[in-house]
Amino acid sequence: MNFDALFSPESVAVVGASRTEKKFGHTVLNNLIQGGFKGRIIPINPAIDELLGLPCYPSLTEYGNEVDLVVVTLPQSQVKAVVAESGKVKAKAMIVAASGFREAGPEGAALEQEIVELCQRKNIRLLGPNCLGLINTEHRLNCSFAGEIPESGGLSIFSQSGALCSVMLDHAADRNLGIAKMISIGNKADISAVDVLSYLAKDEQTKVIVGYLEDIARRKNFVKAAEDAASQKPVIILKSGTTKAGVKAAASHTGILASGDSAYGAAFKRSGVIRADSFEALFDSALALSMQPLPKGKNVLVITNSGGPAILAADAIELAGMNVVELDKETLQEGQLLDHVSETSSIEVLGDVDSDRYAGAIKMAQADPKVDAIMVILTPKIMSRPEEIVRAIAASIDGIKPLVAIFMGGSDVLPARKDIAAAGLPDYETPERAVSALKGMLEYATWKQRPPRSVTRFRVNRRRVERILTRRQRTGRLQLGEVKGKAILGAYGFHTPEGGLASSAEEAQEIAERIGFPVAMKIVSPDIVHKSDLGGVFLNVTNSETTEDTYDLMTLKIRKKVPQARIEGVYVEKMVSKGLEVIIGMTRDPQFGPMLMFGLGGIFVEVMKDVTFYLAPITEQEAIQMLKSTKSYAMLEGRRGNDGVDLSAIASGLQRISQLTTDFPQILELDINPFIVGDFGSEPVVADARMTLAPLPKEE
Amino acid sequence: MNFDALFSPESVAVVGASRTEKKFGHTVLNNLIQGGFKGRIIPINPAIDELLGLPCYPSLTEYGNEVDLVVVTLPQSQVKAVVAESGKVKAKAMIVAASGFREAGPEGAALEQEIVELCQRKNIRLLGPNCLGLINTEHRLNCSFAGEIPESGGLSIFSQSGALCSVMLDHAADRNLGIAKMISIGNKADISAVDVLSYLAKDEQTKVIVGYLEDIARRKNFVKAAEDAASQKPVIILKSGTTKAGVKAAASHTGILASGDSAYGAAFKRSGVIRADSFEALFDSALALSMQPLPKGKNVLVITNSGGPAILAADAIELAGMNVVELDKETLQEGQLLDHVSETSSIEVLGDVDSDRYAGAIKMAQADPKVDAIMVILTPKIMSRPEEIVRAIAASIDGIKPLVAIFMGGSDVLPARKDIAAAGLPDYETPERAVSALKGMLEYATWKQRPPRSVTRFRVNRRRVERILTRRQRTGRLQLGEVKGKAILGAYGFHTPEGGLASSAEEAQEIAERIGFPVAMKIVSPDIVHKSDLGGVFLNVTNSETTEDTYDLMTLKIRKKVPQARIEGVYVEKMVSKGLEVIIGMTRDPQFGPMLMFGLGGIFVEVMKDVTFYLAPITEQEAIQMLKSTKSYAMLEGRRGNDGVDLSAIASGLQRISQLTTDFPQILELDINPFIVGDFGSEPVVADARMTLAPLPKEE
Repeated sequence: MNFDALFSPESVAVVGASRTEKKFGHTVLNNLIQGGFKGRIIPINPAIDELLGLPCYPSLTEYGNEVDLVVVTLPQSQVKAVVAESGKVKAKAMIVAASGFREAGPEGAALEQEIVELCQRKNIRLLGPNCLGLINTEHRLNCSFAGEIPESGGLSIFSQSGALCSVMLDHAADRNLGIAKMISIGNKADISAVDVLSYLAKDEQTKVIVGYLEDIARRKNFVKAAEDAASQKPVIILKSGTTKAGVKAAASHTGILASGDSAYGAAFKRSGVIRADSFEALFDSALALSMQPLPKGKNVLVITNSGGPAILAADAIELAGMNVVELDKETLQEGQLLDHVSETSSIEVLGDVDSDRYAGAIKMAQADPKVDAIMVILTPKIMSRPEEIVRAIAASIDGIKPLVAIFMGGSDVLPARKDIAAAGLPDYETPERAVSALKGMLEYATWKQRPPRSVTRFRVNRRRVERILTRRQRTGRLQLGEVKGKAILGAYGFHTPEGGLASSAEEAQEIAERIGFPVAMKIVSPDIVHKSDLGGVFLNVTNSETTEDTYDLMTLKIRKKVPQARIEGVYVEKMVSKGLEVIIGMTRDPQFGPMLMFGLGGIFVEVMKDVTFYLAPITEQEAIQMLKSTKSYAMLEGRRGNDGVDLSAIASGLQRISQLTTDFPQILELDINPFIVGDFGSEPVVADARMTLAPLPKEE
Repeated sequence: MNFDALFSPESVAVVGASRTEKKFGHTVLNNLIQGGFKGRIIPINPAIDELLGLPCYPSLTEYGNEVDLVVVTLPQSQVKAVVAESGKVKAKAMIVAASGFREAGPEGAALEQEIVELCQRKNIRLLGPNCLGLINTEHRLNCSFAGEIPESGGLSIFSQSGALCSVMLDHAADRNLGIAKMISIGNKADISAVDVLSYLAKDEQTKVIVGYLEDIARRKNFVKAAEDAASQKPVIILKSGTTKAGVKAAASHTGILASGDSAYGAAFKRSGVIRADSFEALFDSALALSMQPLPKGKNVLVITNSGGPAILAADAIELAGMNVVELDKETLQEGQLLDHVSETSSIEVLGDVDSDRYAGAIKMAQADPKVDAIMVILTPKIMSRPEEIVRAIAASIDGIKPLVAIFMGGSDVLPARKDIAAAGLPDYETPERAVSALKGMLEYATWKQRPPRSVTRFRVNRRRVERILTRRQRTGRLQLGEVKGKAILGAYGFHTPEGGLASSAEEAQEIAERIGFPVAMKIVSPDIVHKSDLGGVFLNVTNSETTEDTYDLMTLKIRKKVPQARIEGVYVEKMVSKGLEVIIGMTRDPQFGPMLMFGLGGIFVEVMKDVTFYLAPITEQEAIQMLKSTKSYAMLEGRRGNDGVDLSAIASGLQRISQLTTDFPQILELDINPFIVGDFGSEPVVADARMTLAPLPKEE
């Protein structure tokens, strides 16, 4: 896709240009001129001849020449007419600022849709509506209402909220952090986060991408675009609306647990996006990533001039899963710092705090291969000369190991922040915030070093599954219970207990005798979802007589409790030997596609909701990572009186589901619950399974 | 305790007063004079006659008159001599600034101890050493190295770290937040957090207390002092060093899980201290609590001029366990704000953002009884006049409902912050930070509204327990296993399964027949802690023959596996009917005293570490609160296919342990694991128990 007309147009028309200061139509024109845009600027307003020194035209048509980019500053009701005119002057892109569209209700949404379609017919790309516009410092293009054009630099900002665009620009200016592009995507009627990420990934001026999103459409494309971008430069995103997302109605555990925010979490994890958990963290991360190289590992050395903040730093580092490291005794002796190691292992630059001592400690840390990142803390002390120390620290940056600073205090430190940033040193008000920024860097560094993704393809009986699914879809029986579920999973290499469907007590007895006792017996009915709650499950049936009796008893009971239930029979199968119960499942996000879930047995899933999600298709490594990121992972590893279980067997189960649900998009939800996993080397068993299929598309 | 000599002395001597600027001895003298202290100021330095316009004396002795407070600015090695001299001039308090004491190693610690003892003999209270000094704005007393005396106000600051004292003063000045007292407690050799809290609780100038602590000595007193203070005014504390606290060696689950930070958590919860989880949160909380009244409930109304930040606010409010509320349709109609309600239920002051509209929305929120707290968000928008809006908002404060503001942005907003604060309006850079401050207010308000504590005393057989414990302590058998554990718990009203100790197979059979089948059989040996791991537990023994066989088999097995174990017999008891397994326990913190623990059965405790702690003695309400604060609480309440359990039965168990371990300080640790809880109304049962006793004190 070509965004040249949007980001580097030769000509820009401002429709609705105005004389009145503070009006949109005035501000954008003024910003364009003041920003130093080199191309043609064409103000459009039927009531004026000349504006800010430029000839003003009554309409685009009367201007007559071709225009690359049209900025519409008129209210919502007048936008459609401008689109029609823009087509006439062969405009390639438009920015619509007005609100009152989709965000305002159904009428606005309909109008927005009309405008999008009109733009498509005229081959015009549309930014907005309900947006703040766009800035490209590389071309001195300030097509926005966001104030003066910022300093040029490597940070690109995009945001669904115009207000947060402004706030980020303001913070960036305070830190002397230069801007490459700012894109206010507003309602994303046409140009979306996907387009923006694709463009910024390739943009050479952009070194770091930071974004704010409330929702993501075209999610599948989003994952790809984000992954492409993150492979080239850090991408940090704050996704809000996490609590608004209600609980979905779903038949499977997986579906219910996948409600809310988990799809975004899975998408960000896969695509290497650094997810900020607050607005503060978003900018804090951007600051460090813009200024410093990535850490190679998680060992942090702390250099400080007072004990308290160093303890806060140590707490935060440990909590974030990183390590506080010490320098070697020998190194310390050489640097005459042996007496300066605190209880928390930080180097305390005590007494006559001078800048040489800070610089010396930093040099030692840079030379020591054990140290991956350096944190420097400075608190206002009576004898310190902060400016000098700051200068010394900034001069010590080597561009190889990340160095972040914490200059604590208010007005005492603030005036220096711009200079500090100009020297390439990111600084934070508290140790906790610096650590959170470092953590984001480390996560990104780890993601970048991941091995190439290689998805295993297992040999499976695809045709068998195809047949079962097609038959069920044709007959509209879209809830698959245990019998068909196991048949499908069996075809994809899952081990299921031997068994068969009995439609009489005698048949049940025959099956039991064939497969051997003890057996489990479970009612099979399309109308009964929670079998065991209704007395539809009997375990450990040990002989032929009991088998017959159980058949009769069970069908009798169910008929009494659920008279309308269609009973297909009783499934008789070999009892599964003991093991750890886990649940693996899949739910299909309408946009991100199949999402795999893993969690530990019954209560862990139902009460603790201790599960992880990952987008399919999944690699073996990612599957293992899923297991490791549950809190209950320790249970899998083994604990007192218990050996660990075969992790690779669970991972293989996840990969097989991944393949199955990638092969068959008609499977909407799937639960294997429980999946019983035994000791190392033993085959895990599907003890129960359930699937939901999509209905066949209606024929015309 | 009388701290008048420290906080409002009539005379202050500065020992080590110096001409050299930036030296401690110069700064403190200068600060005293510049601060406007009305009492006598006596510089002491043998080399000088006159200093900063005051006559200077060679020594305290040569000055000769009585002195209330002596500030020592000399290095560590000279402090002892000054203490001796201070006694001669009848000094009542001293401040020692020098470092190099306890924090520097054993030699320093010994010197510190000597100085403390010397002070005690001379009736001198000591602040420090290794501290920044003290400020009392009420008496214009600036006995510190922390810079100029701050504006007078209601915030009192104490801190174990001098540097963080300075940082807090700096932030307070930026926000126009006046200071009552600042106390840098340093090494707390004599005057500790307990003393400071007791003093500040009574101090009328102090309205809010904020503190930083790295450790707490005299913990029992701390809880009392903190509770007294919190009953009168908000107390916010940041306790660092949370990760440094390693895992304790302990015999019980409770002991192991209580490692680290849980004792502090329990102490803060009990005493109503608002615990800040970062340095930023510490000051953020202090700001709101200093300026605004407490909320009466958890319903927050958001008023904003842009959508993005309102969504961030809604996310944060939900995450913090509070609610976003809407105004009534009618109210909105009246206020002509019906079209301004966003998807997130906030009121969006859109379009021509004017100050009247903000003020109007605030008035409505204040009038609506549904609203407990008001959050106002302002982002820089092209058409807004921030100063005017800020003025309007500040003028709307009613002092009845808390109002917090979020003015997003950097330099654009910063210059106004002081004025905003002066108007009594706390403002924050992000919605998340404002919500965290509101949450602290709400927690404190909830604590203040708690009913009076009333600890139930159960009728128990105290003498029986006394006998068992004394016998065990005398014979040095300090690990109590199942049999004695159950005997003790039985005496305190716990239900234990019927049973008896068998020392032969025949005896086992007799006991089993008497109590009735099925029975459980467990090995009894002082040398075996994890019985079941070694095959020392058999459940569900159903007849006499098996009982005999099991006895022989079990003792044989254990003798083989642990040849050196002393086997006292086999405990035969009635099988416990099914129920939910929980664990309740106690571990004794050396300072805070007995700490009760509650958690849900085996894996929840061992793997998920989902437990809560509370200090004994405990009320019924607090016991119920303990249950509710576990993540697995949903399990207790009942879920699909399961009824809930009798919560009051568990609460009663916790209260009985509370009584037991308050009555008998020699019980160091106690586990009831599992404690089996059945349906509502049924008696819970102690299935297994274990205790550790303290050794008898050695006789002289």
